[in-house]
Amino acid sequence: MKASVYTQLVEKLHRIDRLNSVAGLMSWDEQVNLPPASGDRRAEQMALLAELQHREAADPVLAEWLGVLEADGGADLDDDQRAVVKEARRDYDRIARLPEAFVVRMAKLESQAYHAWEEAREKSDYALFAPFLQQQLDMAKEEAGYHDLSGPDIYDFHIDNHDPGMTAVTIEPLFTELRTGLVPLVREIVASPIKADPSPLIGLSLDGQKLFLKEVTDWIGFDYTRGRVDVSAHPFCGGDAADTRMTTRFVRSAPLEALYSSIHETGHGLYEQGLPVEHLGTALGRAVGMGVHESQSRMWENQVGRGRSFWRFFEPRFREIFQLGSDKISSDQLFLAANEVKLHPIRVESDEVTYNLHIMLRFELEKRLFDGDLSVDDLPEAWNDLSIELLGLRPENDAEGVLQDVHWSGGAFGYFPSYCLGNMISAQLWDTICEELPDLEQGFEQGDFSRLLSWLREKIHCQGQRQDTVTLVRRVTGEAISPKPLLRYLNDRYLPLYRS
Amino acid sequence: MKASVYTQLVEKLHRIDRLNSVAGLMSWDEQVNLPPASGDRRAEQMALLAELQHREAADPVLAEWLGVLEADGGADLDDDQRAVVKEARRDYDRIARLPEAFVVRMAKLESQAYHAWEEAREKSDYALFAPFLQQQLDMAKEEAGYHDLSGPDIYDFHIDNHDPGMTAVTIEPLFTELRTGLVPLVREIVASPIKADPSPLIGLSLDGQKLFLKEVTDWIGFDYTRGRVDVSAHPFCGGDAADTRMTTRFVRSAPLEALYSSIHETGHGLYEQGLPVEHLGTALGRAVGMGVHESQSRMWENQVGRGRSFWRFFEPRFREIFQLGSDKISSDQLFLAANEVKLHPIRVESDEVTYNLHIMLRFELEKRLFDGDLSVDDLPEAWNDLSIELLGLRPENDAEGVLQDVHWSGGAFGYFPSYCLGNMISAQLWDTICEELPDLEQGFEQGDFSRLLSWLREKIHCQGQRQDTVTLVRRVTGEAISPKPLLRYLNDRYLPLYRS
Repeated sequence: MKASVYTQLVEKLHRIDRLNSVAGLMSWDEQVNLPPASGDRRAEQMALLAELQHREAADPVLAEWLGVLEADGGADLDDDQRAVVKEARRDYDRIARLPEAFVVRMAKLESQAYHAWEEAREKSDYALFAPFLQQQLDMAKEEAGYHDLSGPDIYDFHIDNHDPGMTAVTIEPLFTELRTGLVPLVREIVASPIKADPSPLIGLSLDGQKLFLKEVTDWIGFDYTRGRVDVSAHPFCGGDAADTRMTTRFVRSAPLEALYSSIHETGHGLYEQGLPVEHLGTALGRAVGMGVHESQSRMWENQVGRGRSFWRFFEPRFREIFQLGSDKISSDQLFLAANEVKLHPIRVESDEVTYNLHIMLRFELEKRLFDGDLSVDDLPEAWNDLSIELLGLRPENDAEGVLQDVHWSGGAFGYFPSYCLGNMISAQLWDTICEELPDLEQGFEQGDFSRLLSWLREKIHCQGQRQDTVTLVRRVTGEAISPKPLLRYLNDRYLPLYRS
Repeated sequence: MKASVYTQLVEKLHRIDRLNSVAGLMSWDEQVNLPPASGDRRAEQMALLAELQHREAADPVLAEWLGVLEADGGADLDDDQRAVVKEARRDYDRIARLPEAFVVRMAKLESQAYHAWEEAREKSDYALFAPFLQQQLDMAKEEAGYHDLSGPDIYDFHIDNHDPGMTAVTIEPLFTELRTGLVPLVREIVASPIKADPSPLIGLSLDGQKLFLKEVTDWIGFDYTRGRVDVSAHPFCGGDAADTRMTTRFVRSAPLEALYSSIHETGHGLYEQGLPVEHLGTALGRAVGMGVHESQSRMWENQVGRGRSFWRFFEPRFREIFQLGSDKISSDQLFLAANEVKLHPIRVESDEVTYNLHIMLRFELEKRLFDGDLSVDDLPEAWNDLSIELLGLRPENDAEGVLQDVHWSGGAFGYFPSYCLGNMISAQLWDTICEELPDLEQGFEQGDFSRLLSWLREKIHCQGQRQDTVTLVRRVTGEAISPKPLLRYLNDRYLPLYRS
């Protein structure tokens, strides 16, 4: 009896996933391809898809099947099946409580708010975006209300959406410890007379950049037979294991940005592509959460991509493509350019040291927005004040300040902390990896990145959602999530570079 | 009573259209972006969408509303409303009779057959495609069976799908007359010592080609704020008025192909963009049929784009972009290259004179496939034989022969005749246009293409589906569809060029 119900459940989950993947592709297309005046049409399409998605995912038959499978504490199910049922229940409860009309409204708003944000950022005019942000915030509260949540539970609900099990209270001490350790490091680097100088790289040909980033990401393992890379205003990784769509962007003043954002998204893409395709849509074929996802992108971008060994292998090809002799930039200068640390108002253009301060800023503001301490109207000023406090600089305008990120336009509150958690998890995993694979970096120098990928495939990717973030990290590293490995790693990498 | 039912009907039609547009975009993406190993996933996504589309479009509530609105011969409705109801009825009857499982099977097959065709064409291996073609043919027959059709009505059903009101019997005499007139023209051109020589254009830079075709299509009126152009194996125009997606392709040996396929697709795109967005999904916001659609693409490609006045205006910019002096190619040689006529095995690479012979070949083979006179296994040989008879040449391999077109992989039988009908309608409309706008071509020389576009907007685009193809042509030109204007136009344009 349970066996046949389980089969039906899994088929339904695949079906839901298939429909979600269509919406995912339409959303990828919206950011990559959509003509500027086609936004209204897309908003209507997304709203209709959201309605159909909701109808599938809130189908009462799911409650019936889940009830059967959960009977007697899930007896007769094996561990994998129990994991599938548990996550299906979590999803079902999250979705079924939302009225269809609410879901449709949310999808429509998401699309409209995205285009409003695009325009507002372009014109650096916060007033164009503020009403949409207010609506997103109201909807985020309304959503939590359908789960009978109030007070601080509302923000926690949204954090939990991205990183199951985490709350503002569990995150706060991690961030505080990290900040305490970061401040002297940043102070020392900023005060150092040694400065990275990427100026010899400015103006690298676009075609060359595309070629190089494609070669690098292909080489480290991104499977281009079931994935692609395109260009969007805000780099991201969409799609899924069967069709992975990552994006990058080219910024003249930041000549390595396209490369590093591609390696970053490749880290996400490798995680997606490492999930078993046959399990797409069930807990066995889904990522744990955004924190672990981000640990993968960060590890490839930073621990790997900004390392000496990486550059020892790729530098000759880099110089060949761009016809860049060592008279123009020495190897040491190139390496320093790849590890430039400077206080910058834009999160996605900042380095891995100061990046975390950007996240703390957003975490703080989100808490205050949800607490009601801060109004949407006062947000730009609060942003700027906190920017001075944390980064020591005031954004020149709102495009460089409160309007810089896409997330809030999509109603993705509680998402930012995942980035910082990802940095911590990444460093923590890296410690374990370096212990278990002692001559890993020598391999990188020879162009062998496959041992790392195999390790990640086995320990992280193939696991799907069998464990939550906290459990997975503890199981793989033997420790609870902590900022210590990240602080150690950052000190070890950056102090030798910037200490004269 | 009728008023409120009509409002409900129209809302439902918009909703169906919105879902169809999602499937349309996914299909555009499949041809433009899909990674090579992601085809299975896409087939599953398309099958699910087809199921949902069918569920919407076959919703029994439509029958109920249509019944109310059709009562008393559509009394209380105005002409526009009657047109909307009539087309909604036609669609509903076409779709509601098909079982959902059939529609899902059809969508899955379409996607699988497309990828099989792609591979078969690449390897020139018909055997890889034949089983899918057989299935498509069986499904086309099965589909007609749900409408209780048999014998010659089956093929007519599919023709009617693309050009309402047309049948094999109405097409046949038009094609015969056209062929009779074409044969001596082709013979004379082929025998002429004057030959077009596009070889000085081979190797034009890709970036330059992209720039030029974008400038040209933008200039003649394609609205890039709600449309785009990309690259696909087989150029097409997807999307709709709100988001028009055309494609082109670059062929080294045919240096003007990308330009002309873009102008061609722009003709389709201008038609789509000329349909009133607020009526998308009803008869007031849809194209009449493929024949008229093709008349638009052909007119911009041929009557306009291959004309002297077009080149007088665009030639300086063309030479500027490609740094092409008249020592490399004279104006007359360039014009002749744009009007090259030669017998070529590939339809989409052939000129507007011989193109029609390619269509007759396909029309003949489709009739025989549906009659049962010809088996799928014998198709390549029959193709080659007919190619010798009509074009005087035998394709070197199946990639150049039976595998060259995408249509049958998508089950689009009865579609090809529309191309030839489009050529006829285009020439026929052109006669009327030149009478009504006497100094049109002088305007082209000055870069004014807007008078033509305004005329087409008013007489064709804005009409939507208010009249069928036959009625529309008669109303606008005063004549029944005939091959005579096309023959006259081809003789007038090509004989002076190729007569020494």
